[in-house]
Amino acid sequence: MKSIEWLGNALRILDQSKLPVETVYRDALSYEDVAEAIEHMEVRGAPAIGAAAAYGFALGAQGYQGNIEGLPGYMEVVQDRLGATRPTAVNLFWALRRMEDRLRECREVKDLAEVRQILIEEADHIAEDDRRVNGLIGEYGNEIIPEKANILTHCNAGALATVEYGTALGVIRKANETGKTIHVYADETRPLLQGARLTTMELMQDKIPVTLIADNMAGYLMQQGKVDLVIVGADRIAANGDTANKIGTYSLAVLAQAHAIPFYVAAPTSTIDLKVATGQEIPIEERPDKEMRECFGVQVAPAEVNVYNPAFDVTPAKYITGIITEKGIMTNPYSVNILKLMVRS
Amino acid sequence: MKSIEWLGNALRILDQSKLPVETVYRDALSYEDVAEAIEHMEVRGAPAIGAAAAYGFALGAQGYQGNIEGLPGYMEVVQDRLGATRPTAVNLFWALRRMEDRLRECREVKDLAEVRQILIEEADHIAEDDRRVNGLIGEYGNEIIPEKANILTHCNAGALATVEYGTALGVIRKANETGKTIHVYADETRPLLQGARLTTMELMQDKIPVTLIADNMAGYLMQQGKVDLVIVGADRIAANGDTANKIGTYSLAVLAQAHAIPFYVAAPTSTIDLKVATGQEIPIEERPDKEMRECFGVQVAPAEVNVYNPAFDVTPAKYITGIITEKGIMTNPYSVNILKLMVRS
Repeated sequence: MKSIEWLGNALRILDQSKLPVETVYRDALSYEDVAEAIEHMEVRGAPAIGAAAAYGFALGAQGYQGNIEGLPGYMEVVQDRLGATRPTAVNLFWALRRMEDRLRECREVKDLAEVRQILIEEADHIAEDDRRVNGLIGEYGNEIIPEKANILTHCNAGALATVEYGTALGVIRKANETGKTIHVYADETRPLLQGARLTTMELMQDKIPVTLIADNMAGYLMQQGKVDLVIVGADRIAANGDTANKIGTYSLAVLAQAHAIPFYVAAPTSTIDLKVATGQEIPIEERPDKEMRECFGVQVAPAEVNVYNPAFDVTPAKYITGIITEKGIMTNPYSVNILKLMVRS
Repeated sequence: MKSIEWLGNALRILDQSKLPVETVYRDALSYEDVAEAIEHMEVRGAPAIGAAAAYGFALGAQGYQGNIEGLPGYMEVVQDRLGATRPTAVNLFWALRRMEDRLRECREVKDLAEVRQILIEEADHIAEDDRRVNGLIGEYGNEIIPEKANILTHCNAGALATVEYGTALGVIRKANETGKTIHVYADETRPLLQGARLTTMELMQDKIPVTLIADNMAGYLMQQGKVDLVIVGADRIAANGDTANKIGTYSLAVLAQAHAIPFYVAAPTSTIDLKVATGQEIPIEERPDKEMRECFGVQVAPAEVNVYNPAFDVTPAKYITGIITEKGIMTNPYSVNILKLMVRS
């Protein structure tokens, strides 16, 4: 089951909002189709959003009807539309900037078809990089996984959140592949239930033992000594290590620290945003009220109830035992170690 | 909207499992009807369960077909059935014991109709006591509520969880009635969503401003300084102050302490179980897997996923700023102060 797949003239997107009850694909034929799929969270997860947006950019160029001179101006509109879909995950902007840079490098190319092909190839590279990077995250991360471990994870940082393999779940997959005895507790992750719907499904498909819990059970599990470590993904990491991730991550980090349980973040370096000094500067997306008043389409609260629905929160670096990237594992002091790591090739 | 109402020969139970989408009443005509309503959580909340079980006991005597000599033996069966419905909330056992004591006092009464009437009156007294006690909890609790307060609550400790007025929500109601500026954050409280479905509805009916949040948002709210205090109900309080309450309460208490936010429990003294020395001895009910795989009747996870579904957790006394009862507010050291309070008339 792939989150996205390039078909040559369209991006096939697995509609994750309907899983696991229905398996539906949407073939995005235009950048607008991709933008809508990102907004509606049919494709979600920071790395998957990045790769999808890159293909969306390439589809923008494919759909362009004018002459080569007008392309850069048109592509600004495409980039703005794709960039306006979700504000928190930085991989989206990172991928779009990479596509924009590639387009700029094509200034001398006067054949529109050739430019289109170059952009598709760049999106392919972004997707391939993500596959490779997740494999490396898995290998580095596996170093901190004990031979026997009960691991708590939140939301879905798996194959579905990436192009393949996953970040937090990539580490878990690698530990499992290398023969370790792994059991995962998956937070269901309200309101959109990515843990209940996606993480459980991925792990069951890989025959990795998993137990579904409600988000509010994590503290009780820790109190009982049932959690050896926590691993989550990330949507944006500030220069000081503060990490934005799915709402609920911060509560888990505080609970983990109160129980002296290691708390790890697994993410590609494309998730690190050096332009943001601390987590306080990371914009936090608020999602529609409907998501809270409903649960997978069914009404669960008074129709007119006031709701608060931030999609992310920020975990200060001091709660994070280590950040697992494709270049190695960073630990405190993050301000120094992030810079060191980013200059490493 | 009343959680339960005695009709003379039946107990009218508001089916809370369907609120707020449907308002359905079940008229329980037998003790078995009451037992099933408690098991299925049509009536829930420790004080409401206690009063419902008392009427269930009275209905048991009404349904008894034999002669007066056989009544005590029959009533043991009734008491066992009602007592087997839910293991954690102690008010159930407290109310059944009070009914059993009243029956024992009737040993000399030879008229079955008279005994039946005495038992109905005793159930009425239990219900009346609950009304009175909640009013007092509200008054004592109001003393610790600032003139302006953002209060976080979990699950439903309101009128629906009691015979009338509520414990945690009773305190909030009283603060509102006395002109304080109150705003409530209601945790939705998975899996059964008592916060989303019931607490929001109760507060909206009373025009008390309320904002619904997912359970995993509480930490983020606290981090932002949006919560002034937490008040929750209780299902059983040990002699040392350790408190069993709806799953998720412990996580909230740890989060509150990490943010230096006061954390209060509001409960009648009938919730205190002096026979239980510490929280570790409190039995924690595990509920059916289905509750976690579904959300208000709709499938939200793989059908075969392994789940963990404890209905309660235990918050150690050290996290509790105060326990608000009808006899006053207890603080640390609870082991001493609970005993002092219990002997006060």
